[in-house]
Amino acid sequence: MLRPHSHACGQWIAPGDAATDIIGPVTGKVIARAGGAPLDMQAMLDHARGVGGPALRAMGFHDRARMIKALAGYLDTHKEQLYALNPLTGATRRDGWVDIDGGIGTMGLFASKGRREMPDGHVYIDGDVEMLSRKGTFLGQHVAVPLQGVAVQINAFNFPVWGMLEKLAPALLAGVPSIVKPATQTCYLTEACVRLIIDSGILPEGALQLVIGRTGDLLDRLGAQDVVAFTGSADTALMLRSNPALMRHSTRFMAEQDSLNASVLGPDAGPDSAEFALFIKEAVTEITTKAGQKCTATRRLIVPAGMMDAVGGALSENLAAISIGNPSAEGVRMGALASHAQKADVLARLAQLQTEARLIHGDPSKMTLVDADPEQAFLPPMILSCADPDAARLVHAVEAFGPLSTLMPYRDTAHAAALANRGGGSLVCSLFTADPGVARAIVLDSAAWHGRIYINNAASAAEATGHGSPLPHMVHGGPGRAGGGEELGGVRGVLHYMQRTAIQASPDMLSAITGTWVQGSATTTGPAHPFQRTFTEIAIGETIHTDPRAVSLDDIEHFAHFTGDTFYAHMDEDAARANPFFPGRVAHGYLLLSFAAGLFVQPDPGPVLANTGLNALSFQKPVSPGDGIRVALTCKRKTRRTDSYGEVAWNATLTNQDGDQVARYELLTMVAYDRP
Amino acid sequence: MLRPHSHACGQWIAPGDAATDIIGPVTGKVIARAGGAPLDMQAMLDHARGVGGPALRAMGFHDRARMIKALAGYLDTHKEQLYALNPLTGATRRDGWVDIDGGIGTMGLFASKGRREMPDGHVYIDGDVEMLSRKGTFLGQHVAVPLQGVAVQINAFNFPVWGMLEKLAPALLAGVPSIVKPATQTCYLTEACVRLIIDSGILPEGALQLVIGRTGDLLDRLGAQDVVAFTGSADTALMLRSNPALMRHSTRFMAEQDSLNASVLGPDAGPDSAEFALFIKEAVTEITTKAGQKCTATRRLIVPAGMMDAVGGALSENLAAISIGNPSAEGVRMGALASHAQKADVLARLAQLQTEARLIHGDPSKMTLVDADPEQAFLPPMILSCADPDAARLVHAVEAFGPLSTLMPYRDTAHAAALANRGGGSLVCSLFTADPGVARAIVLDSAAWHGRIYINNAASAAEATGHGSPLPHMVHGGPGRAGGGEELGGVRGVLHYMQRTAIQASPDMLSAITGTWVQGSATTTGPAHPFQRTFTEIAIGETIHTDPRAVSLDDIEHFAHFTGDTFYAHMDEDAARANPFFPGRVAHGYLLLSFAAGLFVQPDPGPVLANTGLNALSFQKPVSPGDGIRVALTCKRKTRRTDSYGEVAWNATLTNQDGDQVARYELLTMVAYDRP
Repeated sequence: MLRPHSHACGQWIAPGDAATDIIGPVTGKVIARAGGAPLDMQAMLDHARGVGGPALRAMGFHDRARMIKALAGYLDTHKEQLYALNPLTGATRRDGWVDIDGGIGTMGLFASKGRREMPDGHVYIDGDVEMLSRKGTFLGQHVAVPLQGVAVQINAFNFPVWGMLEKLAPALLAGVPSIVKPATQTCYLTEACVRLIIDSGILPEGALQLVIGRTGDLLDRLGAQDVVAFTGSADTALMLRSNPALMRHSTRFMAEQDSLNASVLGPDAGPDSAEFALFIKEAVTEITTKAGQKCTATRRLIVPAGMMDAVGGALSENLAAISIGNPSAEGVRMGALASHAQKADVLARLAQLQTEARLIHGDPSKMTLVDADPEQAFLPPMILSCADPDAARLVHAVEAFGPLSTLMPYRDTAHAAALANRGGGSLVCSLFTADPGVARAIVLDSAAWHGRIYINNAASAAEATGHGSPLPHMVHGGPGRAGGGEELGGVRGVLHYMQRTAIQASPDMLSAITGTWVQGSATTTGPAHPFQRTFTEIAIGETIHTDPRAVSLDDIEHFAHFTGDTFYAHMDEDAARANPFFPGRVAHGYLLLSFAAGLFVQPDPGPVLANTGLNALSFQKPVSPGDGIRVALTCKRKTRRTDSYGEVAWNATLTNQDGDQVARYELLTMVAYDRP
Repeated sequence: MLRPHSHACGQWIAPGDAATDIIGPVTGKVIARAGGAPLDMQAMLDHARGVGGPALRAMGFHDRARMIKALAGYLDTHKEQLYALNPLTGATRRDGWVDIDGGIGTMGLFASKGRREMPDGHVYIDGDVEMLSRKGTFLGQHVAVPLQGVAVQINAFNFPVWGMLEKLAPALLAGVPSIVKPATQTCYLTEACVRLIIDSGILPEGALQLVIGRTGDLLDRLGAQDVVAFTGSADTALMLRSNPALMRHSTRFMAEQDSLNASVLGPDAGPDSAEFALFIKEAVTEITTKAGQKCTATRRLIVPAGMMDAVGGALSENLAAISIGNPSAEGVRMGALASHAQKADVLARLAQLQTEARLIHGDPSKMTLVDADPEQAFLPPMILSCADPDAARLVHAVEAFGPLSTLMPYRDTAHAAALANRGGGSLVCSLFTADPGVARAIVLDSAAWHGRIYINNAASAAEATGHGSPLPHMVHGGPGRAGGGEELGGVRGVLHYMQRTAIQASPDMLSAITGTWVQGSATTTGPAHPFQRTFTEIAIGETIHTDPRAVSLDDIEHFAHFTGDTFYAHMDEDAARANPFFPGRVAHGYLLLSFAAGLFVQPDPGPVLANTGLNALSFQKPVSPGDGIRVALTCKRKTRRTDSYGEVAWNATLTNQDGDQVARYELLTMVAYDRP
C-alpha cells in the first residue's frame, strides 16, 4: 500500500485520516491512500515566496540552467524507480517512456536552451534597442525578469511525471518556485519523482513543494505575481479560472485543455501512397498510446469523401493486431485506462457520439485481454464513422478521453480546414500530404484555430516526431476549446513565468540594467590591447580606437583581382555611377571588413582565441577611393561557454575620414579565462 | 447639439429615442445626445467576421502597413476638425496634441514597423527554425496568422482619439476587423475621427464599426477567435472579463487599467541636482496634463525621507504657477475634468486619501479660474503628504483619477522599490537618478511589478519622452492592478491579434508555408546567373553552386600582409596549433568571405545593385592551407522596399573539398525590379 506524502515547507506530510483510497485500474484493488492531511496553504506560499523565490532569483539564467541539467541527469540515473511504479497507472513501459524519459528529456532541452538562448545574468533582453530619440540619448529596451510569486501547477492524471517536469523546468529556469498539485489517481508516481528531486539536494529549499489531495484555499490566496498553470478538462479549467482572487489580481492563468484534435488525410494521399500509410500508422498510435488518454490524441479523422471505406478498413485491420491487457505482460501494446471512473466516463460519451456516428470498429462488451480482467478499467480501441460532419455537432464538441476516434469525410481542402476548425480550438491538427500547396492552403485556413500543426509525408517520415507528442522546442496549447494557454516552446515557455517590462532610459542606464553595452553609453580604455585581456579582465564597454587607414584605388583593384570579385561597382566608374547606391567606384564591403580586422587585431598569442562569426553587418555608406577608415571596437556582451573560455561579443563601427559611420556589425570571439 | 452616430454594417445609425444627454464639463450645458439606437450586435459581428476579416486577410502585412500609413496621412490632413471639438471634452490644445497628434503618430509608427519588421506576405515568422531531427528532414517553425474573429475595443473617456487609434492600428496590421466602443462622455470626438476614416475610403468595408452607447449582448456573442481590448477602471474590467462567454471560449481579454503609478526620486538627487528639477517638472506635468486624467499619471511620489519638505515646497511653487480654466482660453495650462461625475468621484476619493495623508497643496473650495465657473468640472492641482507609507493602505490602493499625487518618504532603494510595488501592479514607474547602480537595483527589485520603467536624468533630459506617455514602440500595460494586459510595443502589440502556431514539417512544407527558403528544402537553378535576374524573376530556392577554389598558404600570407591581419593563427604554425580551435595555420575568415564573393559575383551591371550587409555569419570549421572552398547561394527571402527595388536575402554556405560546411551566413542584397 503506497502512502504518497505532500511536501510542504521542507517537510514530508503523510496522508491524513481523511485520505482517499486509490483503486488500481488493472487489478481493481486499493493500491494507495492519499491526501487528507491538513496543509497550511499560506505557510506553503510564504515558504515559496520568501525562501524559494529569493534563492532562485539570486542565481542567473545559466546557473539555473546548469541546475536543471544536473537534475535531469540525476533523474535519468534513478528513473527505474519511476518505471517500477508506472504499470500501476495502467500504462505500458512504452507509455511510460513518453512520461518518464519524455519528462527528463524536456528538462534537458530547457537546460540547453537556457544556456544557448538566455543571457548569462539576471535580466532577459527581449528584442532590440528602440531608438526613442533623434540623438540617441534616450532609448528603449524590453527586458523580462522573474515574477516574484509562486507557480501553482495543476496537472492531469495521464502524465504524472512529464506533466510535472514540463511545467517545472521553465518555471525553474525563469527563477520562480513551484507548488505542484498532481491528479490524485496517479499522484504516487509524481510523488516518487518529487522525492528523487528533493533527495538529490540540487534545488534550493522552497523551490518545489507538493500538494497531494485537495488544494483547499490555495487559489484564493494568489495575487498579481503568481501564475496558475493548469492541464486537464475544460470544465475544471473554467471552474478554476473563475476564482475571484485570480480575476481580481489579473493572476496569470494558463490552461491547456483536452481538445477535439483532428488529423487530415490530404487529397493527394491515395490508398497506395506513403502518406496514407503514415496517416493510418499515426492514427493507430494516437488511439492506443496511453489508451487514448492524451490531451493531444486525435479525436477526429478527416479524410477525402471517397476514402472513407479505405481508411476505415485499414484502421480496423491495424487496430485488430494490437494486443490489450496487463501493461506489465509481455507483448501488450495497450494497457488500462487510468481508473474505473475514467472508463465509465468514456462509455457515457461514446453513447453520446453514437447518436451522430456509427461504431465501425471495437466493442466494449467483447474484449480479448492478455492477463487481465475485462471488468477492470480496460476498453478496446474504437472507430466511429460520421457520414454528415457538417450537420453533426457532438462529434466536434464531446471528447471521449479514451481509445477512440471519429472518422468523417470532406469535399475539398477548404472543407477539411473548416471541419478541423469546428473543434473550436485545438492543441494540434495534423495533415498527411506531399503537396506543398495543400499544406499552405490548410495552414492559412486553419492555423488560427490550432496551437500546433503537424505535417508528415514520405520526406519526413523517418524523423517525424508524432502527432501527439508535444516537444519542448515548440509551443503546446491552443485557442478556445484548448484553453487559450501556451506552454513550452523554448524561451517562450520561460517567459510565461516572467514579467516583460519596457525600460526607457539613457544608454548608460540601459547598459547598467542589462549588463550589455548599448550604443551611446560610456566606453573605457583597458590597460592593454583587448586581445591580450582574458575573458574575466575584459570589461563591458572596454574600447579600442584604431588608427585610420586610407583605401586607395590600387587597394580596390588589387583586392578585386586577388579575390575575383570584379563587380562593376568596384571596377567601372561609369557603370558604378549609374547604380542608385554608389557615387562612382567604391571599395568592396569585404575589403573594408578585412582592413578593419587588420586594424584591430593584435597578432600575438593571447586570450582571444578566435573570431567565430559576426551578426547584423550593415554597410551604411559607400567608401570611395581616397577615403580613410578607422574602427572602434567595444566589448558589448560576455557569455561563459565552457570551463575554459567564453564568448565575447564586440560592437564594431567603421567610420570614414569625416567621422561618418560606413559600416557596423557585432563581432563574435571566443576568449580564454586564463592567459595561454 | 452634437448627435454622434454609430457605424454598423456600413450604415450610420443616429441616436435613438433613449439617447443620453452629454453635459459639457466646462459649461455645464448639454453638448450632445448619444446612444439609444437599437443595434443588431450579431449583424455587426457577422459583418466584421464575414466581410471585414476576409478583406483584410486577403492583403499582406505590407499592404496593410501601407493602408495604415495612408490613413495616418489622411487624418493628419484633416485633424483640425478634431481639434475643433477637443475643448468640449475639457482638454486644452496641448492635451489634445497627446490625443490627436499622438494617435496619428502611433498609426504612423505601426505602419513603419509593419514594413520594416514584418514579412511582405501573409504568415509572420516567429523566431528561428528549430531542428527537431538529426538529419534535418523534420523541422519546427513558429508562425503567426491573423485571428479570424473580431477585435472589440472598449476605450476610456480620457483619450477619445488616441485610445481608439492605438488599438486600431495593431489590429489592422494584424488583419483583424474592429468594433470600437468609446466611453459615452467624449464619444462625439471618437465619432468625428471614425467619420474621417470611413470617408477616406481607405479601409475595406467591415474593417471598422462603431458602437455609440451600450454594447448590449455583444460580449455574450464572442468566441475563441475574438479579442476584447479594454482600457478603463479596474471595476469595469473585472465585470467585463467575468462574462461567461469570454470565460468559456478562452476569449482573449486584454485590460489596461488605471493604476497607482509611482515616481521615485533617487537617493543621489539632491535639491540642486538636475534630477531633482526633472522630477519636479515631470510630477507637475503628470498632475496637470488632462487634469490628471491619465491611466499613466503619477499617483505616488516616493522621495528620500530627508527630501519631503524640499519636494513639497518645489511642487507647491510650480503648481501655483499653473493657470486653470476654460481650455480654449489663452494661457490656460489645465482645463476641466471630463465630467461633473468625474469631479465628484475625485473628491470622494480625496476624502478617503485624507484619512492617511495630509493635503499640503491645493484646495478644491478655493480655485482661481480663467474664464470658467468653479461650479463646473474643475479642480485645482493637489498634493497630499503621507508620513507613514508602510502603515498606510489607501494611498497604495485608492486611485483619485484627477490632478493629485501623494508624497511619501523612503529610507533606501529597497524600501523605495517596495513602496512602488505596493501599488499591486502598475503601468509605469519612473525613477530620477544619475546613478546606474540605483537604476539597476530598483529595476531588479521592481520590474516584475511594472509594465514600464522610465528613467530620466541630466544625460537624457533633452530627449526623454515623459513618464506618462506610452510610446508605440514600447509595451503599455502592467501586471495585477494595472490589468495584466499589454498593448503596443511594436510587433508585440500586433501579435495580440494573431494566433501563434507551431508548425512541424519537412523543409519543403515549411518553405511553402512561410514563403521563405528553409535549409534542406528544394533548390532550383535559374535560366541565368542570379545577379542578372530581377527581383521579380528570382525565385525562392533559386541557387547557384560555384566552382571550387583552392586556398593556399600564399593566399593566406598575401591576405595577411595586404590587410594587416597577421594574427598568429594565420601566421605561426606552432602557435596556431596550440590554440584549441585550430589544427595549425588556418585561413582568415574574411579571406573566405572575400573569396566566396569572388566565386559567386557576376561582374556585369545587372539587377542586383548592392550587397547591403549580412546576418548570422558563423565560421564552423577551420580551413587549412591546401583546402578548397565552394559556395552555394540560395534565394531565401524577398521583401519589396521601394517602387524600384527590393531586398533579396540569400543563404550562403561555404563547403570544403570534403563537403563539410565551413561557414554559413545570410547575405543581403538590393535588387531592382527592372533590368538597368
